[in-house]
Amino acid sequence: MATKTDIARRVFNHTWKLDPIVRSLLDTDFYKLLMLQMIWGIYPKVDATFTLINRTTRVRLGEEIDEGELREQLDHARTIRFSKKEMIWLGGNTFYGKKQIFEPDFLEWLTNFQLPEYELTKRDGQYELNFHGPWMYTTMWEIPALTIINELRSRAAMKKMGRFELDVLYARAKAKMWTKVERLRSLPDIRISDFGTRRRHSFLWQRWCVEALKEGIGEAFTGTSNVLLAMDNDLEALGTNAHELPMVLAALSRTDEELLKSPYKVLQDWNRYYGGNLLIVLPDAFGTAAFLRDAPDWVSDWTGFRPDSAPPIEGGEKILAWWRSKGKDPRSKLLVFSDGLDVETIEETYHHFKGKVRMSFGWGTNLTNDFEDCAPRFNDQLNAISLVCKVSEANGRPAVKLSDNPKKATGDKAVIKRYLELFGAQDRIEQPVKV
Amino acid sequence: MATKTDIARRVFNHTWKLDPIVRSLLDTDFYKLLMLQMIWGIYPKVDATFTLINRTTRVRLGEEIDEGELREQLDHARTIRFSKKEMIWLGGNTFYGKKQIFEPDFLEWLTNFQLPEYELTKRDGQYELNFHGPWMYTTMWEIPALTIINELRSRAAMKKMGRFELDVLYARAKAKMWTKVERLRSLPDIRISDFGTRRRHSFLWQRWCVEALKEGIGEAFTGTSNVLLAMDNDLEALGTNAHELPMVLAALSRTDEELLKSPYKVLQDWNRYYGGNLLIVLPDAFGTAAFLRDAPDWVSDWTGFRPDSAPPIEGGEKILAWWRSKGKDPRSKLLVFSDGLDVETIEETYHHFKGKVRMSFGWGTNLTNDFEDCAPRFNDQLNAISLVCKVSEANGRPAVKLSDNPKKATGDKAVIKRYLELFGAQDRIEQPVKV
Repeated sequence: MATKTDIARRVFNHTWKLDPIVRSLLDTDFYKLLMLQMIWGIYPKVDATFTLINRTTRVRLGEEIDEGELREQLDHARTIRFSKKEMIWLGGNTFYGKKQIFEPDFLEWLTNFQLPEYELTKRDGQYELNFHGPWMYTTMWEIPALTIINELRSRAAMKKMGRFELDVLYARAKAKMWTKVERLRSLPDIRISDFGTRRRHSFLWQRWCVEALKEGIGEAFTGTSNVLLAMDNDLEALGTNAHELPMVLAALSRTDEELLKSPYKVLQDWNRYYGGNLLIVLPDAFGTAAFLRDAPDWVSDWTGFRPDSAPPIEGGEKILAWWRSKGKDPRSKLLVFSDGLDVETIEETYHHFKGKVRMSFGWGTNLTNDFEDCAPRFNDQLNAISLVCKVSEANGRPAVKLSDNPKKATGDKAVIKRYLELFGAQDRIEQPVKV
Repeated sequence: MATKTDIARRVFNHTWKLDPIVRSLLDTDFYKLLMLQMIWGIYPKVDATFTLINRTTRVRLGEEIDEGELREQLDHARTIRFSKKEMIWLGGNTFYGKKQIFEPDFLEWLTNFQLPEYELTKRDGQYELNFHGPWMYTTMWEIPALTIINELRSRAAMKKMGRFELDVLYARAKAKMWTKVERLRSLPDIRISDFGTRRRHSFLWQRWCVEALKEGIGEAFTGTSNVLLAMDNDLEALGTNAHELPMVLAALSRTDEELLKSPYKVLQDWNRYYGGNLLIVLPDAFGTAAFLRDAPDWVSDWTGFRPDSAPPIEGGEKILAWWRSKGKDPRSKLLVFSDGLDVETIEETYHHFKGKVRMSFGWGTNLTNDFEDCAPRFNDQLNAISLVCKVSEANGRPAVKLSDNPKKATGDKAVIKRYLELFGAQDRIEQPVKV
């Protein structure tokens, strides 16, 4: 028989300096690239600070993760550039049915892109991690910062585990995931995509989950938000836009009127770059009720909405009612659900809206980081936490988010109060934020 | 990063002629070696035929397994000899607390041991597989014949499965196995051993299950019947004796009286070779009730019984009552349960007899071949079947087994009838034979 050990690989492994978590700038969410082109095109002079926020305060990241390892990973990420193969793929691939979604000038600029500096300190057992500088650079830190911290936390959790325990851990996680796949494939015509990059247990595990969905639900799996996994697995790269757009534009507003109009200004900017299927509204930055109340009629012409913090059925119904009030048939519209989904919520939402509206589910944390009860010995460190990286300042002015769920609001308290007075607090419902 | 593929191994793999199932003569049950020394010492001139019996007749092995592959595996097994390392270990290891359990003369003879010829034909979709010749050669075919056929069947079942399906299959099987481990370790002072060689899904899977028990239940895992796995993992090699002993001795009997005494003659022979913990009675070859009824008093001095075909609680209680009738305290005695056990039966039996008698559980098929509901697509071929390899003739005379369960009786019908008239049919209870 062949020797069982590949000596060269073994030697290589035990002389490793670093096992990098981020190995490609494409290992990010597709919406970051879409937004980046728009920021590069319209707001190249705007500065924006991104800040790490650990909403699961009981977890003390400063104690779980070694600062030296964190710096090494962040430093390594800063050395990466887009490779030739990646640039060719970005320029040549069709996204959302559209060729050349990225302009040649933008791609040329991207060729030399590198992640900017970071500012890291530790306080009260938590990391304070900030990215200052031009928005068109700092925005790209969001996903790698989150994947690095989440994967370092998984690695720390698993350092104490033996080879056998690890084997059982992954066996159980795979079995658990496959049970979800089997439940989902019993729902006819469902559309599910992977939105789990930022919260993933690890890159390799996200890849396994994506393969599981591809194999298990077939056509119902519409793609992944992870650009690298989309490229490597011939899947659709999916995503639209994020709260940072209305947050920055609101922060830059000079008058109350400008502030109130900022959510619609975002849509107009977006429309200059992306048509067709990419016209998806993210309505909850300053409350969905306020957004719908003040929305110009043309917003109802957009393809759909991504309600991201209201309870899915209640929040979805309000959007359906609004479409109807604008004379639109919701059956021609799309709702993209993406907030804290798991199989139960997906099933419930699917059955509720089936036949009433087109739906798509962007499945995140519970897809790529559900290890609850999988470890042979209880291991709380393997449970996902609610970690985000949000814009906190734009051109030196505070940027805030209200959200439909007050628990998901971010930013300076006084500014939140001012925004609430302006936009109103209608329909905001406090719900626990698990993931 | 290192290259992901070990080219040399890949090339080696795809030029394989054969992936042998049996790679060592130690890959057998320990009791075969114990019995072999006794057969070699006392019955070297006796001929015995072993015959494959597939009790799961709905499964047509002749169609599931390729005859050419089966012959290649059987032929390969015939080329194997005990290696020097193996011989040194057999001579130097302590078994059941005893040094040099194997005589030097026997070990010298064993050095040149090879499996004898086989006779294979196909009829009505089933294989007819017989081993004719001296008992001290043919007896050693039992386990390799069974492991080869069972693993060829698993391989055939998995040929249609993709890489991903296989991944999910084993993930689920591991998760399932670990759930059993967790249930078992909640039973204080339980003693469990692996008796699953003959029915295993594959060698590698049995090895994983043994590692799982070692890691998961620790001291409660008393060892394995598989000699190779015992050697490689520093575990106790466990086992006592099998039905072939009373079956052959009964077949050789010239008078009714000799026949009725044959089960006790076996014990006297055994006692000449193995003392101490190895004095375990296998009482059911011709019915446990008959065995106890006619047993000489000295049988109650033996360490324990291995009831192998009666319902465990009912059958065990009868043995306890018999011990008490002989003035023995069952709490100083041992019952070894080994018939079709799974977690449920183990728990039930354990709770019933706790404090009344010492117990040990020899866990077989449901330990090493429980893949039910593990395949992503339904695959009946992965479910274990009831396959045995039994002695069918001794010196040209038919050998039969009555068993406590008529479904487990084997051999010529007319002879079974004669034996039943002689031994009686008391307490024989028909139960389905699943594994």
